[in-house]
Amino acid sequence: MKKASTARRGRHASAWKSVVLSREQQFSLKRGALLREAGRAFSLRGYHNTSLEDVAKTLDVTKAALYYYVKNKQEILFECHMMSLDFGDDAMKYCEEHGKTGLEKILLLIDKYVKTITSEMGSFAVLGEYDALEPQNKAIIGKRRDKFDRGFRKLISEGIADGTVRAIDPKLTVFFFMGSINWMTRWFTTEGPLTGEQVARQLVDLIEGALRSR
Amino acid sequence: MKKASTARRGRHASAWKSVVLSREQQFSLKRGALLREAGRAFSLRGYHNTSLEDVAKTLDVTKAALYYYVKNKQEILFECHMMSLDFGDDAMKYCEEHGKTGLEKILLLIDKYVKTITSEMGSFAVLGEYDALEPQNKAIIGKRRDKFDRGFRKLISEGIADGTVRAIDPKLTVFFFMGSINWMTRWFTTEGPLTGEQVARQLVDLIEGALRSR
Repeated sequence: MKKASTARRGRHASAWKSVVLSREQQFSLKRGALLREAGRAFSLRGYHNTSLEDVAKTLDVTKAALYYYVKNKQEILFECHMMSLDFGDDAMKYCEEHGKTGLEKILLLIDKYVKTITSEMGSFAVLGEYDALEPQNKAIIGKRRDKFDRGFRKLISEGIADGTVRAIDPKLTVFFFMGSINWMTRWFTTEGPLTGEQVARQLVDLIEGALRSR
Repeated sequence: MKKASTARRGRHASAWKSVVLSREQQFSLKRGALLREAGRAFSLRGYHNTSLEDVAKTLDVTKAALYYYVKNKQEILFECHMMSLDFGDDAMKYCEEHGKTGLEKILLLIDKYVKTITSEMGSFAVLGEYDALEPQNKAIIGKRRDKFDRGFRKLISEGIADGTVRAIDPKLTVFFFMGSINWMTRWFTTEGPLTGEQVARQLVDLIEGALRSR
């Protein structure tokens, strides 16, 4: 009886392993965790003042192990930015699926995005290091940011059209709201007194006040 | 007759000179103009990528002339930050004198501050270069920023107390609003399609919507 149960557990475990953790997925998961931790290391002393050796030390791995996952500091910085933009795309998709009006979609977008970056990124202070991106990487990140901003503006226009958002300038408004969010890299830490959820709630509340037509 | 008039003009001119342009004031005015133009030079290529020689070239003066007013690049950066904080203090004083309620003061503060930095600073992109400040300068600027933020929070509390501002978290709200303003260093230029006045008007409108109690 005990043996059979163990065997079943064994089968379960190996089935779980083969489904969830293919070699490729395992690499990708570990790499993701590493990027998040490296982002945290950069945020402690700034990108320019942190070497790949410092990152390895913070992660308690050898530099060789680190090289298995990333080829240099710049790749870490770039991938952290790409990760945050993936979260942005996820939040955009989520709000389109779950919101009915323009205003609803905007508030879902902000809520989802802020909650995700404050919880999933280790430290997202590293996202403040935009100018440390090399030109070709900066161009890629810049393009994706612009695309996100355009999607955000479209939601505002949708809200103005369906009457849930009052008449404001979508372009300026997105600049101001993204400023509020991007500036969080300067003051928010997971070690601070407020959770990402509380911060997201206050921002959503302010943005709703700023936008809702009356 | 003509002689007397010329003499009078002469007296006037020298009186005007001695009142408005003392040696010290002349130095201070010229230095201010230089700082604004140097700020613009930094904003073109970033602080780290711009030498004092580049600044001299942009200003069309010799490096020696430049040294008469500032001792190095860092001093220019520091003084640009100090200038923006002086504008912040001026705006704070202005809103205290001209606003009656908490909400009125907040909107006057934002309007005055945004209009001033977009018109008086040459380019205020240089204010984005906070991490390029040397530690002792960063500490001074950081303290003044904190003081400004505390004053801003007090206005929000005043508005909540007098019933013009709805119940929100003053600290988080100031972080978010200052984020919107500080992020302007990334996208606003005086060469862009919108004037500082138009930008200020839209921000004031959004902030009023976000704060006003109903």
